[in-house]
Amino acid sequence: MSSYKYAENLEETVKKLSDFHSLEELHHQSCKGEVLPSGQQLRELISLCRSLIFPGFYGSPDVSDKNLLYHTGINTEKLFDLLVQQISAGLLFATNDPVLHNDPNQLEELAEQRAVEFISYLPEMRRVLSTDVTAMYNGDPAAQSKAEVILCYPAIRAICNYRIAHKLLTLGVPLIPRIITEMAHSETGIDIHPAATIGEYFAIDHGTGVVIGATSIIGNRVKLYQGVTLGARSFPLDEHNNPIKGIARHPIIEDDVIIYSNATILGRITIGKGAVIGGNIWVTENVAPGERLVQAKAKQ
Amino acid sequence: MSSYKYAENLEETVKKLSDFHSLEELHHQSCKGEVLPSGQQLRELISLCRSLIFPGFYGSPDVSDKNLLYHTGINTEKLFDLLVQQISAGLLFATNDPVLHNDPNQLEELAEQRAVEFISYLPEMRRVLSTDVTAMYNGDPAAQSKAEVILCYPAIRAICNYRIAHKLLTLGVPLIPRIITEMAHSETGIDIHPAATIGEYFAIDHGTGVVIGATSIIGNRVKLYQGVTLGARSFPLDEHNNPIKGIARHPIIEDDVIIYSNATILGRITIGKGAVIGGNIWVTENVAPGERLVQAKAKQ
Amino acid sequence: MSSYKYAENLEETVKKLSDFHSLEELHHQSCKGEVLPSGQQLRELISLCRSLIFPGFYGSPDVSDKNLLYHTGINTEKLFDLLVQQISAGLLFATNDPVLHNDPNQLEELAEQRAVEFISYLPEMRRVLSTDVTAMYNGDPAAQSKAEVILCYPAIRAICNYRIAHKLLTLGVPLIPRIITEMAHSETGIDIHPAATIGEYFAIDHGTGVVIGATSIIGNRVKLYQGVTLGARSFPLDEHNNPIKGIARHPIIEDDVIIYSNATILGRITIGKGAVIGGNIWVTENVAPGERLVQAKAKQ
Amino acid sequence: MSSYKYAENLEETVKKLSDFHSLEELHHQSCKGEVLPSGQQLRELISLCRSLIFPGFYGSPDVSDKNLLYHTGINTEKLFDLLVQQISAGLLFATNDPVLHNDPNQLEELAEQRAVEFISYLPEMRRVLSTDVTAMYNGDPAAQSKAEVILCYPAIRAICNYRIAHKLLTLGVPLIPRIITEMAHSETGIDIHPAATIGEYFAIDHGTGVVIGATSIIGNRVKLYQGVTLGARSFPLDEHNNPIKGIARHPIIEDDVIIYSNATILGRITIGKGAVIGGNIWVTENVAPGERLVQAKAKQ
Amino acid sequence: MSSYKYAENLEETVKKLSDFHSLEELHHQSCKGEVLPSGQQLRELISLCRSLIFPGFYGSPDVSDKNLLYHTGINTEKLFDLLVQQISAGLLFATNDPVLHNDPNQLEELAEQRAVEFISYLPEMRRVLSTDVTAMYNGDPAAQSKAEVILCYPAIRAICNYRIAHKLLTLGVPLIPRIITEMAHSETGIDIHPAATIGEYFAIDHGTGVVIGATSIIGNRVKLYQGVTLGARSFPLDEHNNPIKGIARHPIIEDDVIIYSNATILGRITIGKGAVIGGNIWVTENVAPGERLVQAKAKQ
Amino acid sequence: MSSYKYAENLEETVKKLSDFHSLEELHHQSCKGEVLPSGQQLRELISLCRSLIFPGFYGSPDVSDKNLLYHTGINTEKLFDLLVQQISAGLLFATNDPVLHNDPNQLEELAEQRAVEFISYLPEMRRVLSTDVTAMYNGDPAAQSKAEVILCYPAIRAICNYRIAHKLLTLGVPLIPRIITEMAHSETGIDIHPAATIGEYFAIDHGTGVVIGATSIIGNRVKLYQGVTLGARSFPLDEHNNPIKGIARHPIIEDDVIIYSNATILGRITIGKGAVIGGNIWVTENVAPGERLVQAKAKQ
Repeated sequence: MSSYKYAENLEETVKKLSDFHSLEELHHQSCKGEVLPSGQQLRELISLCRSLIFPGFYGSPDVSDKNLLYHTGINTEKLFDLLVQQISAGLLFATNDPVLHNDPNQLEELAEQRAVEFISYLPEMRRVLSTDVTAMYNGDPAAQSKAEVILCYPAIRAICNYRIAHKLLTLGVPLIPRIITEMAHSETGIDIHPAATIGEYFAIDHGTGVVIGATSIIGNRVKLYQGVTLGARSFPLDEHNNPIKGIARHPIIEDDVIIYSNATILGRITIGKGAVIGGNIWVTENVAPGERLVQAKAKQ
Repeated sequence: MSSYKYAENLEETVKKLSDFHSLEELHHQSCKGEVLPSGQQLRELISLCRSLIFPGFYGSPDVSDKNLLYHTGINTEKLFDLLVQQISAGLLFATNDPVLHNDPNQLEELAEQRAVEFISYLPEMRRVLSTDVTAMYNGDPAAQSKAEVILCYPAIRAICNYRIAHKLLTLGVPLIPRIITEMAHSETGIDIHPAATIGEYFAIDHGTGVVIGATSIIGNRVKLYQGVTLGARSFPLDEHNNPIKGIARHPIIEDDVIIYSNATILGRITIGKGAVIGGNIWVTENVAPGERLVQAKAKQ
Repeated sequence: MSSYKYAENLEETVKKLSDFHSLEELHHQSCKGEVLPSGQQLRELISLCRSLIFPGFYGSPDVSDKNLLYHTGINTEKLFDLLVQQISAGLLFATNDPVLHNDPNQLEELAEQRAVEFISYLPEMRRVLSTDVTAMYNGDPAAQSKAEVILCYPAIRAICNYRIAHKLLTLGVPLIPRIITEMAHSETGIDIHPAATIGEYFAIDHGTGVVIGATSIIGNRVKLYQGVTLGARSFPLDEHNNPIKGIARHPIIEDDVIIYSNATILGRITIGKGAVIGGNIWVTENVAPGERLVQAKAKQ
Repeated sequence: MSSYKYAENLEETVKKLSDFHSLEELHHQSCKGEVLPSGQQLRELISLCRSLIFPGFYGSPDVSDKNLLYHTGINTEKLFDLLVQQISAGLLFATNDPVLHNDPNQLEELAEQRAVEFISYLPEMRRVLSTDVTAMYNGDPAAQSKAEVILCYPAIRAICNYRIAHKLLTLGVPLIPRIITEMAHSETGIDIHPAATIGEYFAIDHGTGVVIGATSIIGNRVKLYQGVTLGARSFPLDEHNNPIKGIARHPIIEDDVIIYSNATILGRITIGKGAVIGGNIWVTENVAPGERLVQAKAKQ
Repeated sequence: MSSYKYAENLEETVKKLSDFHSLEELHHQSCKGEVLPSGQQLRELISLCRSLIFPGFYGSPDVSDKNLLYHTGINTEKLFDLLVQQISAGLLFATNDPVLHNDPNQLEELAEQRAVEFISYLPEMRRVLSTDVTAMYNGDPAAQSKAEVILCYPAIRAICNYRIAHKLLTLGVPLIPRIITEMAHSETGIDIHPAATIGEYFAIDHGTGVVIGATSIIGNRVKLYQGVTLGARSFPLDEHNNPIKGIARHPIIEDDVIIYSNATILGRITIGKGAVIGGNIWVTENVAPGERLVQAKAKQ
Repeated sequence: MSSYKYAENLEETVKKLSDFHSLEELHHQSCKGEVLPSGQQLRELISLCRSLIFPGFYGSPDVSDKNLLYHTGINTEKLFDLLVQQISAGLLFATNDPVLHNDPNQLEELAEQRAVEFISYLPEMRRVLSTDVTAMYNGDPAAQSKAEVILCYPAIRAICNYRIAHKLLTLGVPLIPRIITEMAHSETGIDIHPAATIGEYFAIDHGTGVVIGATSIIGNRVKLYQGVTLGARSFPLDEHNNPIKGIARHPIIEDDVIIYSNATILGRITIGKGAVIGGNIWVTENVAPGERLVQAKAKQ
């Protein structure tokens, strides 16, 4: 095929699409040649975290007590490098701070500090994720072993990405956390905002369609089924009729709550400790501790 | 490993599976050696469209006012070539027209015309997509910037694929549009049929589980949450008890409607301007403009 | 970038992460160097099955009556090799049987037998899948051709993976079946447990969010829409308060049932022959044959 | 890094390099979008020929009497496709024939005929190459087996490429043969012009630096060592002082000749049957059958 | 396979090989994490130069007067980026200058200046290389077209790499030029030191084994055949018995000289204008202009 | 393109090429499904050896005293695995020993022992190669640093491959050593038989065309220039007129000898300590220690 015959027809479109002034906010101009957040690097970063946390299940399968030190050393080094690059990229992308844009040494210094803090947190992250694995193994009669949970359950991958992203967010890294949770969203259908707060022994079964909003607070030993939404109900508007950003607007789910499939919990309400929310219902008011709520009876 | 020992056991299965007469409609015979629709090429085609529409966010990150013309020129040329190949492939796959199958010059001529028409539409497609970006940024308190919407929000990718596929469909290209929207479906969980009609400032939040049927008509400034279905209720059957194809059977959603998560809207009904449909409900009758509909109260 | 400056800071984390005793069940030690289940190989295995079952649609597009024998022969051989490797990997991973771990000849013998049995079943699997294609083509007014169904419909890919995984499960292969259905889950949002029992002419429309639990039994000519759950309601607990594994706890769906989008059917109940379950409802009790059930009316 | 700061400096060079008129013969304009000869495709083409001729040594190692038919069938089909593409590319590149440039059906017809003729010759090519293998195995005390010769000896690869290229040249295919022998030249340091005529049982030892010119004629059972040149001495010049093309100007080497390392044989002379040429000498006159020629004695 | 059983045996070797003090000059410590010269990037850099100089022959084949500007713009930008990276890498690798090692802005500034100077020279480099193409086409009766020379002749690739490397060397870039000529050496068997000085209309036929030393000076319209050495005869030694570096020690070849295959020209001698040196001879003294020198007669 | 039209024409050739009986020694039948020697794995094996011997120059550039242990540990483990696989492959390919073919545990045991012995030799191999680097740096006025020698000089790569291959040969590994030296031959034009014996401080300058035969013995501090042959003169023939294998037939080069470019040294002769052999000469008789030999004078 050849575009030769239509070169002149195409010329005009090329000109229109190249009109920089028409682009406004639809492009990103990288006039200093900074590295941008890279999907491929972030996927590798996630892979490295997973293989450091669950060695032998992710990353090289040939891990033993004889060589774990070597593998951990190499993977930590690679992770550090990727973190420094992507944290830098996120900082440059999301801020206009002239110091960061003009002084590469300061930018690198900042990114390296964040990277070290993140890596230092990995042993604790492993401990918390192990409670999630336990919760999902204990809570699912179909699970044959914890190995099956770690290897096959999409919720583990989604929660792992969330815990990584949440830590980066608390370290002040912009944009990157959101990309990381959206990767899990695409892979598993589970959409957890990195700003949400989630306790230990957290379980999601099946998971497709789960949405956990940015200001949600989830206690310990909570279990969600597929299609559950922890969302916002309405937003206070500013003078331009746009939602005001940064207001707590998602539910608080206390310890030991179970929410069945496709239930929708909306607004800054509290689902009390030990409550059980049945499937396919729409909840916009507080639910008392221990309460059990189910859908109105269907009709024939 | 080796199949040598079991060669004779396998032989019989090979023969059964190679029995061409048993295949009927389960294979595609390509007796002229035509190029087939290719998932890999279509993924590249989508990437090129995205980088032409949102330069710097997709494709090469090193885009500036100094070099945008070069990038646009090269990408337009590549896109033209891919379009010609895939449009040809779609035409050959889906039609029995002997002219297209036997006269490569006529086929190429037709495919090139469609490709040029598609490319000429890209500046307008950029304008419409920019309204979708604006709607999603304004409507989500969690969005930090339009850049975050373009880079991270799955709905942008799904709507972008839909707008590309819809244009190709209106140009008479078979099969390819459906493959393109199914790619977005797999990536985002959002399933928009390429034949649906969708206005400007269209927003989908989170998105997993959204289904928009082939004859749906959606106005301007409509917002859908995850799990919303715009589906068909029942199909008139033909004499063989199969659904009659081509009848309008999906809803009409007028301007400024909001539909919350997991709501199911079925049949050729109309949701009037400015109506609000609560989550988890099943709607099979018209809803008046401005009406607000929510689920029957749950019971304890 | 360089981790040099922070080498000592990182050293401590490396040591903590390399502490083998802290890993307990969070790692997999492969002290004999066995091959592990491999996502990449299983993806290739699925591709080979698809191209053997639907030649010309999957795999090489240049299939004709002249060369189908060659393609089938080569693909069967490759499939055999992959099956032997992955069945061996699954057996070693999931069992502690010392014979399999220490006698490579016995392990290979067992894996080869299973592989041959699986391959011998492929012609029958093709027949059953062709009924699924027919059901989806006949049941969807938007489908232009069976080719479109085979090429574009995610449900075909999910059901194909399920039927492969179910056969492997009945042959006693551990772990691998679950990985195979989770691949389809990630790709399509449809989560079918490999242990479920599903009849012929099975159709799923759109599909995202569908969950079919391990002990579900589905008859012939059943149709599910997106977001339908066939789940468990409650689990008998053992003395440690954990669910008892292996008890029938999912629904029985008899022949000719239709279940609309986002309906949740929970527990070992029976949905009788020809029943129609409306969308967004929560069903925990038997439904009589032919009954039609819809949601309680919404309120304004 | 970024080219932004120097954009204007680079602009001028871009303009100079884009001045089409300055390019004259230094570019290739492909105004019809024809496929060009492709190094990657030709490498694959050579691999396919090698695996058809020496199955099990090249290509899939899992070849047995049970599956050779399948492998041969598939590889022949792939080879046919590549040949048709590359023969077409060579014809378009090297000729100005308007029929070939404007009638794709005629071009394809011609290319397909040549491809079939080439493939039909492969069994005979296998027979001739087997004589070369035998000659190299018998003539080298260091060779442990014919398998070692086929797998390791660069001369086999160079002669194999030559025999493929020579056949294509005699079928009237332009350019492609030369690219094929230059691939072997780069890989082995052995430079055989595709137009040379070479008999059976041909052996080259080590091979680096061997040059065999276009009009050379080599008999049966000839053996060359590394660095041997069969070259031209002087060329009759035309009125512009350029060499006249197409004149026989390289040596005739009769049966059973041995030429030792770094000997240079120049001009249309004849080295008679059974002659032995010592290393490092310069031969520009006929050598009688059976004669032995060595360098003048060195001095201290 | 598994290294588990031999872990302790291997442990000792790992320790020996990791003993940093034993490494002395055999390793390169990159304590600042600088980018190193990269073979892969340099291969891409060469590809970009070739496609800028000979558009349509190298790089994208779809070059026409309609799109040459776009291709040139994009390739120039990519080349600039690669040059800046690799020039920086070469400077850091080869110098101990603390300014370059500690001030990334100064290093980048220097590398960018050199990159711009190099790119500005490309139009002149194209002109000179076109004289080499002409010389090789006119001088070889086997050449069918200049296109064949550009596409197939290894000498063009070797001379192109030399001219690129020589320019970088004169711009003060260390190490990189040598890597670039060694790439051509490996690909073509032609070893030209980047410091050599070579005039226009330079031709090498076949080329394998040609060696051109660092202080060689070659005039215009010189032609070399395969295996020709322009080498050094003896080196003045310093007090440690090592050769003194930097002394002119290779031949001067004046205009219009022809040197036949495998001739060895050693030392700082002069081969006068228009001289002809026969093959396989060893020349260590001046040769007068126009003289013709051939090997002593062989003996039987 | 399609082979459909010519399917019957091709059918006959497919049958001829698939006739197993006609293949005799031209194929390799792998009836047990053994792994074969793999070019790709051997290239990776060589890369690992190079990065263990010259860390920072080959393999990861980010090597420092902080992380060398990790890199060495991981690379040693990978090398062990590759060695076990390729040694097994070589043993199966080259021997008919039924024990090795039928008892996978014995084969693995043998391969693992050889792999451990090889790896244990690496520290000594590093020491010897460091003498070669020193010899080449000291002997070449053009060398700027030892780093340049290690990174750029083809002879280092060729000698490195030779020393690896020679060690494997002395450990009784068949076939693999020859493949390894042929890889270096293709890359550098230097052809060293793995069975040759070569001392320390060995230098080759430029190298293209150097041939060192299987029974050559080379002392310490020897230097060869490009195109030097250490070959065999004539072979005693057996009763079938084929060369008798295994007889010493190549030269002995004593310490401190220099041999200039394109010299050919043939037969089991001895070049005495400190002798200097001029270029382009043919030597078939002993040369006394300290002697200097040059070509007979050229004539005009």
